[in-house]
Amino acid sequence: MGVVLPFEEKSSDPEASLNDLVALVETGMERVNAMILSRTGSDVAMIPEVANHLIASGGKRLRPILTLATAQLCGYRSAEGGRDGDVKLAASVEFMHTATLLHDDVVDESDMRRGRVAARIKWGNQASVLVGDFLLGQAFKMMVEVGSLRALDILSSAAAVIAEGEVMQLGAAKNTETTEDEYLAVIRAKTAELFAAACEVGPVLAERPKSEAAACRSYGMNLGIAFQLVDDALDYGGTSAALGKNVGDDFREGKITLPIVLSFRRGNAEERAFWRRTLEQGEIDESRDLDTAIGIMRRHRALEDTIERARHYGAIARDALALFPDAPMKRALLQAVDFCISRAR
Amino acid sequence: MGVVLPFEEKSSDPEASLNDLVALVETGMERVNAMILSRTGSDVAMIPEVANHLIASGGKRLRPILTLATAQLCGYRSAEGGRDGDVKLAASVEFMHTATLLHDDVVDESDMRRGRVAARIKWGNQASVLVGDFLLGQAFKMMVEVGSLRALDILSSAAAVIAEGEVMQLGAAKNTETTEDEYLAVIRAKTAELFAAACEVGPVLAERPKSEAAACRSYGMNLGIAFQLVDDALDYGGTSAALGKNVGDDFREGKITLPIVLSFRRGNAEERAFWRRTLEQGEIDESRDLDTAIGIMRRHRALEDTIERARHYGAIARDALALFPDAPMKRALLQAVDFCISRAR
Repeated sequence: MGVVLPFEEKSSDPEASLNDLVALVETGMERVNAMILSRTGSDVAMIPEVANHLIASGGKRLRPILTLATAQLCGYRSAEGGRDGDVKLAASVEFMHTATLLHDDVVDESDMRRGRVAARIKWGNQASVLVGDFLLGQAFKMMVEVGSLRALDILSSAAAVIAEGEVMQLGAAKNTETTEDEYLAVIRAKTAELFAAACEVGPVLAERPKSEAAACRSYGMNLGIAFQLVDDALDYGGTSAALGKNVGDDFREGKITLPIVLSFRRGNAEERAFWRRTLEQGEIDESRDLDTAIGIMRRHRALEDTIERARHYGAIARDALALFPDAPMKRALLQAVDFCISRAR
Repeated sequence: MGVVLPFEEKSSDPEASLNDLVALVETGMERVNAMILSRTGSDVAMIPEVANHLIASGGKRLRPILTLATAQLCGYRSAEGGRDGDVKLAASVEFMHTATLLHDDVVDESDMRRGRVAARIKWGNQASVLVGDFLLGQAFKMMVEVGSLRALDILSSAAAVIAEGEVMQLGAAKNTETTEDEYLAVIRAKTAELFAAACEVGPVLAERPKSEAAACRSYGMNLGIAFQLVDDALDYGGTSAALGKNVGDDFREGKITLPIVLSFRRGNAEERAFWRRTLEQGEIDESRDLDTAIGIMRRHRALEDTIERARHYGAIARDALALFPDAPMKRALLQAVDFCISRAR
């Protein structure tokens, strides 16, 4: 323990990918996917329809992967003697995430989610709220089946913190004067907390000492922050010149993210007036304002520095795992940090 | 056990009130109220504001009262050796109920709740969804603190069933051909399940045998059904001629309740066309249609028979408690059944 291996000294790898991590949890994830499918079942037909619209649309399932991975890292033997605590907790984590997305769409009045029309557009706000509630209930049922009060404590606390973070964000919405610290408090709660909880329940299931649970929690928390910051930068096309097709969603929704926080603070009076008009008053000229916004961000290196901040949290995440001995799973988790950050290039 | 006392043979008491029950749980409810207040606290100011808008607006707090009462009935000694499992579970039950109300208002697009402007009107749909989620998270945290996996199982299952019931209702919305059985399945899930769970966790906390848990669950389930049916009748003024001021809300929202189900089935072609126009197509003439609706209900004795059905479930609730020996708490719980039904006169 505590041995720092050369691998950990390496900075982010341009070839970084999630492949190793995904391969290491492959059989577990098959069982998670089967569990997810069976627990969205209901005689009420609308429930599997709405739930699967979102769940089947993919996403990387990073959160449940992290639960399986940290459990495995800490020596939890799944499927041994019929134990599938990691699979059930991983499925719970994905349900909590899906419930949050369903409720977020209602809160943000979003039309799209993961490249598909949002559930609330197809089935209405009502169905999104209620199916979210159903998934949350099912998530807790699965956790209770696992029977670990510590895991229950971690995940139920996360549920309250996430909702608190979302309300915090609502309060800060459209406020261009949001500070970097305030913004960090929001993403810690609304995004990183679930990553942290997903990683913390692994060692808890394996009944490992507190130091390992704290290490995995710290890994998840900082990975989650880095993940969200990179997402924020990607929404403005990252640092590359080529813009993907989903660029500008945050801008059009008036979301205050770190690139905005940095640009606003570093900007001149004219630029601040631009941010106030577009984000606070919501007066956006679709044809010109996004280009202007990205131009201002480039001038102030706001996207580069957002990714620089992400790299900082990524480094903390990597160091958090230092107390674990070298192993394929540890290497795969370190690589996942590099992957999350290298997405932005 | 199993002794049937004369008191239980009595039919509903016109003087029935909740006073005895309220008096027996008074000190416990003071602690529940303090717990509720402390657990809605948050640095995010909007959370206590929204939560307390609804919680402070009253309501009888029947559900947490039932948790305290059944725990006491089964000999759970609260506050002994610092135990306050009943207080925490009672507060959890109230939080679950409050979260449901907040989400319901969004789903029903209601403007009013408990005689006050609905939270969603004052703070927006977003805040209602998110504060509901926060309260649900806090409810689970409190349950986890109590540490009873059986109680956790009961309440988390209830959360999933309630949401399922709400989605079921959404699917049946505005369908005048809903059968009585279909309607009962909805109210069992969306209303009675929480009453059942609130009552079942009492004996579970007191570590009483399964038969007592089942008895209390049955009492709560049937009381909950009776409670909802009486509410349905009251929304059309009950069987009395004098109409209160909140009469007609269900009608204006196009809600299908038992008085409608009975009236539609018993009605002629012209009456059915009326229900289809007003409830399915939502074409309601505020000045005349409510009177017409009540007139049709009176003609078919739909309100009397809705209350007759409630009386049936009330009788089952009373019989469910028969295995408990006579005691002030048992008498108070039986009286509560009578109270729920006598509200309708």
